[in-house]
Amino acid sequence: VADGLQSLGEFGIIGLFRKDAGPGRRWVVQGIGDDCAVLDAGGKERLLVTTDMLAERVHFLRDGITPFQLGYKSLSVNISDIAAMGGEPTAAFLAWGLTGDLDEAFVTGFRDGLLKCAREFHVDLLGGDTVSCKSDIVVCLTVLGRAEEGEVITRSGARPGDVVMLGGVVGDSGAGLSLILHDTENVSAADRKRLLAAHLEPRPQVELGRLLSTRHLATAMIDVSDGVLQDLSHIAGESGLGADLDADALPLSDAARRLAKSAGVDARDWGLTGGEDYMLLFCVPPDKEAETVSACRVELGLDAVPVGTMTKEKKMRVRRGGTWSEVPIQGYDHFKKTE
Amino acid sequence: VADGLQSLGEFGIIGLFRKDAGPGRRWVVQGIGDDCAVLDAGGKERLLVTTDMLAERVHFLRDGITPFQLGYKSLSVNISDIAAMGGEPTAAFLAWGLTGDLDEAFVTGFRDGLLKCAREFHVDLLGGDTVSCKSDIVVCLTVLGRAEEGEVITRSGARPGDVVMLGGVVGDSGAGLSLILHDTENVSAADRKRLLAAHLEPRPQVELGRLLSTRHLATAMIDVSDGVLQDLSHIAGESGLGADLDADALPLSDAARRLAKSAGVDARDWGLTGGEDYMLLFCVPPDKEAETVSACRVELGLDAVPVGTMTKEKKMRVRRGGTWSEVPIQGYDHFKKTE
Repeated sequence: VADGLQSLGEFGIIGLFRKDAGPGRRWVVQGIGDDCAVLDAGGKERLLVTTDMLAERVHFLRDGITPFQLGYKSLSVNISDIAAMGGEPTAAFLAWGLTGDLDEAFVTGFRDGLLKCAREFHVDLLGGDTVSCKSDIVVCLTVLGRAEEGEVITRSGARPGDVVMLGGVVGDSGAGLSLILHDTENVSAADRKRLLAAHLEPRPQVELGRLLSTRHLATAMIDVSDGVLQDLSHIAGESGLGADLDADALPLSDAARRLAKSAGVDARDWGLTGGEDYMLLFCVPPDKEAETVSACRVELGLDAVPVGTMTKEKKMRVRRGGTWSEVPIQGYDHFKKTE
Repeated sequence: VADGLQSLGEFGIIGLFRKDAGPGRRWVVQGIGDDCAVLDAGGKERLLVTTDMLAERVHFLRDGITPFQLGYKSLSVNISDIAAMGGEPTAAFLAWGLTGDLDEAFVTGFRDGLLKCAREFHVDLLGGDTVSCKSDIVVCLTVLGRAEEGEVITRSGARPGDVVMLGGVVGDSGAGLSLILHDTENVSAADRKRLLAAHLEPRPQVELGRLLSTRHLATAMIDVSDGVLQDLSHIAGESGLGADLDADALPLSDAARRLAKSAGVDARDWGLTGGEDYMLLFCVPPDKEAETVSACRVELGLDAVPVGTMTKEKKMRVRRGGTWSEVPIQGYDHFKKTE
């Protein structure tokens, strides 16, 4: 193939494995194709497993993130996958490749960030693998979690008419990345701090995931890692449905709006296709919307915001500036050329 | 630190995490420091977890291994860690970073090798992460396994007087690597095939591990990944003991002996420090040695070979050519300069 892996793409590669790997044995509740695998751990217990790889010059730049932040983020994005299934994270494993020019300060900084995140979310670091790499740092975290049988929320449970909701603002991470890549000076210190933190030290919504799962409020869920458009299309695809997304209703921060204005871009795009916000995106039956909003407000002090509706017709439509239009599935594919 | 990570070393880095990660919560049976982590999975069930990273130009050369072999080996070396605890492998997760110049044939070849290994050892591939990398392929497998409470064999259970045994020949993998690195022509096709297979498609000793664990024959166990010297010193260190190793008794293949002779090297060194043989190295109480040898022969058709003794004195001694001498702990450290 002349164009390497571009025509196949990330999801084509995954498809090649999914097709041949088979459904697994009886104790496999969920195999390839969701935020986590789900295993029957005996009785009502379910074991959740997720793994994510971060590569230098692809996911991060060495000068754009401190070792502490890299350690924190490496773990938190995996915990977010557990949260996206309604699970409680329990244990973490760190496999990483380090280049010879790094020093002990890098290792201790990374460790401190990772263990801070582990403490915050009650996760035990239980093992891993430390190897050398020739040119780029690579970090691979595997995180285990647990949930009870009826609590696991997959991507595939959405029903037509379900309200699509977001657990918090999106776009801040994309705005933060923009600050790292383009040396923007016209930003207040407070805005800069907020947007960089969203990108460099994202906080997974574990409590929200547990609330939605233990109260059986959500029918489908995912965390926003690839952007709302692509992540919603994952829910739609796995549920055999379509979705109407109201981009005008996306919760955006004032900080992101201000940066977008000064940069001459549309802040909604950071939320739609920027990714890495790690907010939970979930579907709620219409008759549970009020209860969901209220529970989020009262128990967690956060605003669950309706941003769309699941539809029977397998199409993805987006409303912008009051006008609806059909859109192709978008987002970051690791092997497709960006336009 | 002027010398990067060299003075700290791989085991120094692990030590920095082990010190601060804490012992974990009650359900953690074994944290950082063995082939696998061991978790209480409820009742008598134990969950084993291991993860390993393979990096291009460090663990393999793109021209030295086929995609099929890389897929097979990536999984088999992780299954070997489950075998080394006496466990039964159950599920695998693949996180990998691919460079843009790879093609679909690479992906399907790798997949075929990985899934062949998965079928051979009854492992389900249940998820992972596919990302792009700038310069080197990186493969990270995480494998889960199971065992019952009393079956788990750690590195730390050896007792003074225990017989140190090997589950098969060592050195073939080091000899195979030597064939890849040095273009040796003076080797028969059969020898070449055997030695390359040992290095490129190592077969983990899962059945041997299960036999030793379910019959309660071994007190401590590890798989030979870093070389017999270093792996035995891991058992000694974790058990608070020393060991006498009879290098003259190491089981070596005729193929490795022939290659060593023509290359003017000592074949024992491939076994002692070459690593990647993935044979099980285990300790057996003297009164169970005969039963162990017999069970291995009758049930698995393999020769368990005594190669040393665990000692009270915390020293590592090696016998070569009939002479004993004390040796420093040796083997491959990812960040130490090789002499």
